[in-house]
Amino acid sequence: MATAQTSEGRLTESQMEAGRRAYELDRQHVFHSWSAQEQIDPMTVVDAEGSWMWDSQGRKILDLASQLIFTNLGHKHPKVVSAIQEQAEALCTIAPQHANGARSEAARLITERLADDLNHVFFTNGGADANEHAVRMARLHTGRHKVLSAYRAYHGGTHLAINLTGDPRRFASDRASDGVVHFFPAYTYRSHFGSETEEQEAERALNHLRDVMMLEGRDQVAAIVLEAIPGTAGIYVPPPGYMEGVRKLCDEHGIVMILDEVMAGFGRAGKWFAHHHFNVEPDIVTFAKGVNSGYVPMGGVVMDDAIYATFAHRAYPGGLTYSGHPLAAAAAVAAIEAMETEGVLEHVQRLSEEVFAPRLAQIKEKHPSVGDVRGVGAFWAIELVTDRETKEPLAPYGQTASVMNAIMAQCRSNGAVPFMNMNRLHICPPLNITPDDLNFGLDVIDDALSLADAFV
Amino acid sequence: MATAQTSEGRLTESQMEAGRRAYELDRQHVFHSWSAQEQIDPMTVVDAEGSWMWDSQGRKILDLASQLIFTNLGHKHPKVVSAIQEQAEALCTIAPQHANGARSEAARLITERLADDLNHVFFTNGGADANEHAVRMARLHTGRHKVLSAYRAYHGGTHLAINLTGDPRRFASDRASDGVVHFFPAYTYRSHFGSETEEQEAERALNHLRDVMMLEGRDQVAAIVLEAIPGTAGIYVPPPGYMEGVRKLCDEHGIVMILDEVMAGFGRAGKWFAHHHFNVEPDIVTFAKGVNSGYVPMGGVVMDDAIYATFAHRAYPGGLTYSGHPLAAAAAVAAIEAMETEGVLEHVQRLSEEVFAPRLAQIKEKHPSVGDVRGVGAFWAIELVTDRETKEPLAPYGQTASVMNAIMAQCRSNGAVPFMNMNRLHICPPLNITPDDLNFGLDVIDDALSLADAFV
Repeated sequence: MATAQTSEGRLTESQMEAGRRAYELDRQHVFHSWSAQEQIDPMTVVDAEGSWMWDSQGRKILDLASQLIFTNLGHKHPKVVSAIQEQAEALCTIAPQHANGARSEAARLITERLADDLNHVFFTNGGADANEHAVRMARLHTGRHKVLSAYRAYHGGTHLAINLTGDPRRFASDRASDGVVHFFPAYTYRSHFGSETEEQEAERALNHLRDVMMLEGRDQVAAIVLEAIPGTAGIYVPPPGYMEGVRKLCDEHGIVMILDEVMAGFGRAGKWFAHHHFNVEPDIVTFAKGVNSGYVPMGGVVMDDAIYATFAHRAYPGGLTYSGHPLAAAAAVAAIEAMETEGVLEHVQRLSEEVFAPRLAQIKEKHPSVGDVRGVGAFWAIELVTDRETKEPLAPYGQTASVMNAIMAQCRSNGAVPFMNMNRLHICPPLNITPDDLNFGLDVIDDALSLADAFV
Repeated sequence: MATAQTSEGRLTESQMEAGRRAYELDRQHVFHSWSAQEQIDPMTVVDAEGSWMWDSQGRKILDLASQLIFTNLGHKHPKVVSAIQEQAEALCTIAPQHANGARSEAARLITERLADDLNHVFFTNGGADANEHAVRMARLHTGRHKVLSAYRAYHGGTHLAINLTGDPRRFASDRASDGVVHFFPAYTYRSHFGSETEEQEAERALNHLRDVMMLEGRDQVAAIVLEAIPGTAGIYVPPPGYMEGVRKLCDEHGIVMILDEVMAGFGRAGKWFAHHHFNVEPDIVTFAKGVNSGYVPMGGVVMDDAIYATFAHRAYPGGLTYSGHPLAAAAAVAAIEAMETEGVLEHVQRLSEEVFAPRLAQIKEKHPSVGDVRGVGAFWAIELVTDRETKEPLAPYGQTASVMNAIMAQCRSNGAVPFMNMNRLHICPPLNITPDDLNFGLDVIDDALSLADAFV
């Protein structure tokens, strides 16, 4: 069943030939992220449309990872493509010190979707530099240096951002942590506090954070940085009351609350911003990825009026050449407008209720290797274990396992690729995926999980 | 004379109206780089073509700064615009773990223009993250932590990059310098070593660097980071022998030589890379800006085979979502090919010899406020002083002065804007500017310098 949709004569022989040359040149000249360069075998993507990719053999593959969870509108969205083409003709680029229509309009549309006092956008190139600048703003605003961020979290690959990061990718770079202190997140399935319920987890995780603040010096802390919903770490939605509790702690001690919406924002969690699931207003929001589906690199920092005021008559000591790049901004304007006019958030809500939740519940029931399924919107995780009681992960923390690689290989050969991290599969397709395509993808995953069941 | 070319009925009333709205929204929602937000008055750029911009009053202004020294092919270069439009239709984006034709071809064209053993490109979003990753590679390659970089230099705005930076923009962020040690650059006009000739400066600056290495521990140093030609700091070409001497010191002590070509590369200095003016092969080259004239954000790190080998079978612990972005890569391919087929490097050489050098010599002779003029290719600086003997700068180091702002205002009102930094004007127009346009721009500057002469 799973292979029926995977072959299709879309590509011409010359396209496939170009794909083979692309692969050869890639292996000769391209250095890849997070990889041992001679131990990878990249898939060449020759063409893509909507939720589908075609490789250099002409095979059709469903993208359940939205690349790296950023093509929220899929590939070749006609309105975003046209907007880029028109802006390319009108004005590709302009320096950050000038004003420009596309940039202004993108800033308006982004701030309009946030709380009333989040009014100014500092545009960056991506999520990493957005988080770096957010921390710098918080430090200068408070006059304090320490920053608390969560273990397991991912906040980007540049030096400060990788130090904010709480997963093993920071180990090579955290020799000088530059004031970053990590605390334990609220993660009910793998509670660091022995919790058995969400209520316990919210309470204990907040007590823990309060203790860290006390022991690190409450008046030393400039900011608490949190992913609105942790993404790569495992898509664990904070339990009810947790985020509100963090907000309260920040208010009590004059700490800036920075929510990283790089992965979870712009519809991924079924709302414009994932923190709209909670009753909190952050002081700073960072974004990237979904803002324009990554069609042109862009990220940013949205700050509240109090932080803006700090830099009203005092220069902000930071900047970058491509801040507010018109081509990226035009893509953002088109992407936001398309999400609005095409009812993308409503579509995600339906997918969540009618496909994700019931199908993943069935998958959990069927496969003893599935320890947990969880998610919201189009942002879902399957956690694989060798024992549901002990929750022993199918791959150790910070590592992979041959069975995980085998699952991914089978998925790919059957025509659908999810995102894999340690012992988890994440299912984060384009937000406008059809229910049929999503069901096909879930069929492929369902099949492949039999490989995991053998380890239970 | 200078105002003749500045008015032209290019813009429609509705374009100008859109420009005014862009300005209003900018002031409401856009946070600008390096600025006190309520003390700036951005120029709205409504349209631009080649070396010219039009503001929201329809005024035509010559861009002698290539925005922030990055639109090396000017605005609306037809081949680069078409390449972006075609790639937007074909495939805007793909994740970094896949292979893609535009990315592969860009990597081929870039490495082809560098020494034989510089064969792999790690693409980033801009120059700052390129420098951050270059340092990380050097640290992991050598197993050492310290990095030496030059005072005055600029290397980017993220945390590690701003710490590498040697100008005052780092002061707000260098509380934890993370192993960066600054040394004094070779800068003959304002020698830190009392030199009176280039020979003296090269020798003394090398002795100084040798002393810093000895006192910091030669076997502790992972990398020396240098702009191939310092840019924002003042466009001072290293004296003959200096770069070769740095290369020798690096070789003697197993230190990685990183040359930052973000501003000076891709034709700005009249060659593909500025370090081609010297007899050196760096271990790592970083780039951004001119690689695609900034039409789409892109930067990168080119590493030699030895550094590549370090990460052949060991994962490189770094990455980013938009690494090797196809839209940016397609723009790079088109920009490099256009520079090649249109003879841009040869054109720059002619401008340098026939316009820049003679006209700036005249300007120096005419204006007692001009302490020094210097440059190469289309990369020139005028250093303004109150006294040619003492070289007292017209604005103090790290600051501006009202007369500098007045010079810029007069230039703008007469229709041409150079780049200003402290007591210097930098003249770095698009590489394909016509001699007539460049002469017009130099006329505007010539006129405005009378304001500076009053302070001598």
